[in-house]
Parts: sequence; structure tokens; C-alpha cells
Amino acid sequence: MPNINHHYLKLKAGYLFPEIARRVRVFCEENPTVADNVIKCGIGDVTEPLPPASVTAMKNAVDEMASRDTFRGYGPEQGYEFLREAVAQNEYQNHNINVDADEIFISDGSKCDTANILDIFGDNNVIAITNPVYPVYVDTNVMAGHTGEADESGAYEGIVYLPCTAENNFVASPPSQKVDLIYLCFPNNPTGAVASKAQLQEWVDYANTNNAIILYDAAYGDYISDSTIPRSIYEIDGARNCATEFRSFSKSGGFTGIRCGLVVIPKELKGTTPDGEQVAVHPLWSRRSSTKFNGVSYPVQRAAEALYSPEGRQQVRALVDHYMGNAAILREAVTASGLKVWGGENAPYIWVQAPAGVSSWDAFDKVLNEANVVITPGAGFGSEGEGYFRISAFNSRENAEEVARRWAELKW
Amino acid sequence: MPNINHHYLKLKAGYLFPEIARRVRVFCEENPTVADNVIKCGIGDVTEPLPPASVTAMKNAVDEMASRDTFRGYGPEQGYEFLREAVAQNEYQNHNINVDADEIFISDGSKCDTANILDIFGDNNVIAITNPVYPVYVDTNVMAGHTGEADESGAYEGIVYLPCTAENNFVASPPSQKVDLIYLCFPNNPTGAVASKAQLQEWVDYANTNNAIILYDAAYGDYISDSTIPRSIYEIDGARNCATEFRSFSKSGGFTGIRCGLVVIPKELKGTTPDGEQVAVHPLWSRRSSTKFNGVSYPVQRAAEALYSPEGRQQVRALVDHYMGNAAILREAVTASGLKVWGGENAPYIWVQAPAGVSSWDAFDKVLNEANVVITPGAGFGSEGEGYFRISAFNSRENAEEVARRWAELKW
Repeated sequence: MPNINHHYLKLKAGYLFPEIARRVRVFCEENPTVADNVIKCGIGDVTEPLPPASVTAMKNAVDEMASRDTFRGYGPEQGYEFLREAVAQNEYQNHNINVDADEIFISDGSKCDTANILDIFGDNNVIAITNPVYPVYVDTNVMAGHTGEADESGAYEGIVYLPCTAENNFVASPPSQKVDLIYLCFPNNPTGAVASKAQLQEWVDYANTNNAIILYDAAYGDYISDSTIPRSIYEIDGARNCATEFRSFSKSGGFTGIRCGLVVIPKELKGTTPDGEQVAVHPLWSRRSSTKFNGVSYPVQRAAEALYSPEGRQQVRALVDHYMGNAAILREAVTASGLKVWGGENAPYIWVQAPAGVSSWDAFDKVLNEANVVITPGAGFGSEGEGYFRISAFNSRENAEEVARRWAELKW
Repeated sequence: MPNINHHYLKLKAGYLFPEIARRVRVFCEENPTVADNVIKCGIGDVTEPLPPASVTAMKNAVDEMASRDTFRGYGPEQGYEFLREAVAQNEYQNHNINVDADEIFISDGSKCDTANILDIFGDNNVIAITNPVYPVYVDTNVMAGHTGEADESGAYEGIVYLPCTAENNFVASPPSQKVDLIYLCFPNNPTGAVASKAQLQEWVDYANTNNAIILYDAAYGDYISDSTIPRSIYEIDGARNCATEFRSFSKSGGFTGIRCGLVVIPKELKGTTPDGEQVAVHPLWSRRSSTKFNGVSYPVQRAAEALYSPEGRQQVRALVDHYMGNAAILREAVTASGLKVWGGENAPYIWVQAPAGVSSWDAFDKVLNEANVVITPGAGFGSEGEGYFRISAFNSRENAEEVARRWAELKW
């Protein structure tokens, strides 16, 4: 019988979102009269329609596929030139950031990219991951055999965890030890924290000094309203030598069901072979794309390109403003209830400290039972998330206002 | 500096299709007067429009995304129920083949699936691969570190190659030694060979006796016209205990640019841990999907579902008939030229033996120079492909007929 990848067996069985779904289902079964009133502020999934510019572009692209003269078969695995150029121009070059179109690889989403990026690295790197964190970074390292078993708190042996706490305002500093790969996500999921230019410079300097590579997840970059906060790691001097950057159309263009994202791999970025030879990372990722991927659906790439048209940009702005309007309403309501709140200003997530002695899951159950609102327990994002919970601002305005009303009635 | 995955450096630099593209480019530059006359029968990419049923379904799905009430965000990573059910019904249950909807995992294409499947297996399995073969099976094993270096013929140390030759009619028999994972592809790319029920039974029996798993690539299944030839490995007794099956909408529905495929993982399928414990494979793949993938674009899944509607089925039939009409024309023309021909009867590929002493690449150059037709040199698919070449039937009827006319003028 073939050997399976036994590292999968180290993963904890109860993944966060299925457990939330289970508890909501049980609650609704036991409370049928209020089941229809449950408002979901749990999973970070968009709710508003696809921007009209993307709708039109996607339908036009499907029409092209309907005619022999304009039909397109296999596209370039790394993405169509029109989209790579549009990203390079609009996300980088227009802001005086040096990123070329051929350093941009179009994908079907940041989750896939942040998971697949491990393919091109070796198995004996020291991995640093913030805590709390988006679970994919940890789980993909477990699956790749880069860790030992998890301890009682859920921490895996071998990972260097970087605690993000109220004390450091949920922005970790570089560790004292040397690490090789570092996952950073700003604006942060789940805490909504953002990093200043000085804080990111500290990370880039650390990486360049220690020959580390930063895997920078900027999926929520469009939610930054404070103009002093960097939206790209490449705004930082030296970042091209030490960082990849992941971006997504999921939260900017409402593409969670359409699927498109990208990763930037600067040509300067290098790793080493076991013999100590330095090797550029860009051709490795390009080869991976050619061999294990077949590019993103052509109509999807046209839909993404349309987000950079004049109308598309306005529509993205309106979408982000809508969700950030919700965030302001929710932030204010939770603050008024006397709880301590972070995030929600440059990110669509509000991070809330439960009252002393109330666990993440206790808070989840209380809010579900008493306000019929679904939140996400912070402990699901790592041990440092215990005692906190996340509220997602992805919702209709009506629902956000209703959550605020219900929150005012909650007694903690 | 982080370690890179140094196994990538074992891959040969000159991948087949870029080298073909380079030679065609040089030829066109040197022969500008005939550059417009070059007909491509190289890469196996479809040319005809997307079936109207899929066009309509995809545009309707995009319209759903344009309205708040019908908008869909994240879908199930394993695929929407409507598509899993449609596949289970139409590909399997209607033909009395036992495959459940929840054993079907929808993906963005068979290339990705046949590559990613290695994630859930261990690193010390003995891998058997036919020769010649679709290069992805070999290259992904090289990238995963399952091989040593390549020798002069391009064969990688550690892989058990199964020669497919004129002697065995390009259908390999099971090896005498024990292997753990076996890649089989029928109808075959590149040879166009198909396996009879008896031949597949031999493979399934071998796999069950030796506790091996067959990775069965049925991407070209819709091109089988001979009703005695199995279209699915699950037509064979015992296959649910030893085989996964990959299917694709690329060649049936013309989806190479739309991107949709699937893999079937029967619940019976098992592997072992290093301790010898038996573990079901299905939950491992499901977990991989949840962690490293975010599902296929919703409009794409609706486009795929539409291929199973009454109109969709007719349109798929017409598309396959069109390409198989080309195959018959090309097969006849090449046979008439005195060359020995295989395939092209239950597959869209024609496999041709070059005259004695003419290498694959010599034949490629001759056909390009004298007939201005692009073919694929067999050596690009492995050492046993040397002395052969592949002609793809994916083209317009006009082009297929023109290739036949030019072929009649070729002197070998």
C-alpha cells in the first residue's frame, strides 16, 4: 500500500469554521423561532454584488469564447499580459513602486498562493509565524512536514511563533533568533492591525541581515485609509531583496466566488541549494506554474482587469467604503459596550477583548445565544487569540446596524 | 538565506513546448512569405468555440453575481453540489458505475490535479510511469524529490519506466516488480492508444495484489467511439479499491481556457502510515482541498454543469465529432504517405513512426520546413518516443484538410 503523507495526521481535526457552522446549526435547530434572525459576522466573506465593470467584462469575455475568431484556449500559466500589466501599473508603478509585469503571477486566489509557495522552498527552513494568524500558514507547514506534533495549546513543535498581543498592539517585532521564512499579513487577519513604515522597515532590515524571506500577505491592502501606512511591502527600502507579496481581488472586488489573486516574486530574490549555491526564486515559481498550474480562466482575468478601469476603480472604492462604513458602526457599538477594541479602521475586521474570565468560545456562545450574531472565537487563530474574538464587517449596512442595536442590549 | 527546493534543479531546462515555439518563431522569421501559412498541429489545444449551452449558463451565473440576492461568495472547496451531482449522474451512475457525488472533487483542471495529488502521498513510494508520457507526471515527481538525476536519455533515477512500444501496441503491461503508485492515461496522450477491459483488469488486479494505487487519467475519455473500450477505470471490477480517476472538461467541452476538471477518490482507497496503520485517502484529499484551495469560480462550475444538459450533451458530441473527423482525415493522409500510424481512432492524437534513421526532431524540422505544419516530436514525451511524432487533431476542418493536402506532397 502506498505511504500516505502522514504529516496530515498531525492536523487538528476540528477546523475553526466547520466547528462554528456546527454550533450555529445546533442553535438554529434548538431555537427555530429566531433561526431566521441570525446574522453572520463570522467568516470573512463578502456579501455585496460583483462590481458592474467586472460583470460586463466577464460577460464580454464569455462572448469572445463563443466565436471561433476570438476563442482562446490555453492561456499563459503565469497570467495574461493584459492583467499582469494592469496590476504592475495600478498597484505599483503608479505609486512609484518598482515592480515589473513579469514579476507578477496571476493565480486563482491568495489562499492557494500562500499555500503553494512552500513548493519552491526546501524542507529544513526555520519558519516564523505570528500568533494569532490565518490558519493556512500554519497548516500548510504542518502538511509539508516542517513541524512536529501540536502541544495542548495547539502550537506545533518547530515553528517560531511571534506573539501578537495588546502589549505590542498586535504587531510583532523581529525575533532575536535567526529564521528563514517569515509570514506577515497586514492589514492583519484576524486582528485588523496595520504596520507602520518604520515597523516594516525593521522587518525588512532583519530579513536582509539574516538572509530571510518575508512572505507578505497584503490581501486586505485596499482597506487601508491612513495614507501613512504602507499598502505594499515594496514601499520599504530593500524589500525587493527579501520579500514576496500576495494580493487578492477577493476583498477589493468581491471576488471570493470568482477567484483571482496574484503573487509578486522580485527577480532579486534568492535562496540557496544544500551546497550553498545561490539560486533565484523567480524561475522556480515560474517553472512551478508551468508544470502544476494551467492559468486562471480567461473571463475571470478580464473581470479582474476591469477593476482597474475608471468605473471599476470607483466601484471598488464604493465597495470598500461600504464595508468600512459597517466596520465603523460595529467598532463604535462594541466600544460603547465597554469592551476593548482593535482594528476596524484600516481593515474590515474588528478584534475584541472579551471581559476577564470569558473565553473566546464562551463569548461566541453568549453572542450567538443572546444577540443571535455569529462571530469568530479568537482562539481559533492560535493560542494568543484566546480571550479575544473577531467581528467581520462584510455584511449589508442593514445587518451591520442591526448587530449594533443588538450589541447595545448585551450585558457582559 | 532560505533553502530552495533543490529538486527543481534536476528538471531539464528545455521543456518541450517552449522549444517547439522557439523553432517555429525562427522558421517564421527566416521565411516571412510562408509564415502566415503555418498550421499548428503541435500542442493539444482546442480551437472551436465554447458550446452555446456553457456560454449561456456562464453568462447567467455572472448575472447572478451582479445582484445581492443571488450573489455567491466562497463556495465549497470540493465543488458545488450541483456539479458534483451532475458528474456523478452523467459520467458514472447513468452507466451503472458506482461513484458518489461526494467522491468527486471539482478542480481547475486535470494538470493541477495530477500534479497536486502527490501532496497526500509520502515521499518513499515506488513510482511507475509509462514512457512516452505526458511530461507533468514525471516532472512533478522530480519536483517532489522522488527521483535522482536524469541520465542522458532523460530518464530519472528511481522511476520505474513502463515502455510503450509498437510491440505492445503502446499499452504497457504491469511490471514484474512491486510498485506503489502507477500513472496510466487512456485514451493516451501522446500515443492515442486505448486499453481494453482485459488490459485494465490486469492492471487493477496487479494493483490490488500489490497494494498499489493507480492514478488514472481519463481526460480524453469522451473521444472513445469503440463501445467495448472502458471510458472509466471504475468499469473494472476492484478498481474502487485501488484507483483515483482524473477527468477534464478541457477536451470534451473546449474548456482549456475556461478551466475545470475533477478527480474521483473512492472512499475505499487506503494508504499506510510509517507505522503500518491503514488510512483512508479521501479525507486527506478533502483536507488538502480545504486548506490549499478555494474552489472553482462559480460561473465556471455552472458552465461545466451545462455540458450535461440535453443541448450541452449534443454540443459536446458535435465538438468531439468535429475533432475526430479531423483525426480521420489526418490519419488517412499520413497512412497514404506510407508511414506507420497509431491512434486517431479513439483519441484526438495521431502517433506516427518516422522512417528508419529519421529522428523525432528531424521529422519535426522536415514537416515544418517542407509542409509548414507544426507537429510534436515524440522524444519530447520520453526516450521511447524517439523516432515518433504526434499530430494533434485539434483544429478547424479547413486546416485539417489543408494539412492532408500538404502531407501528400511530402517526400520521406
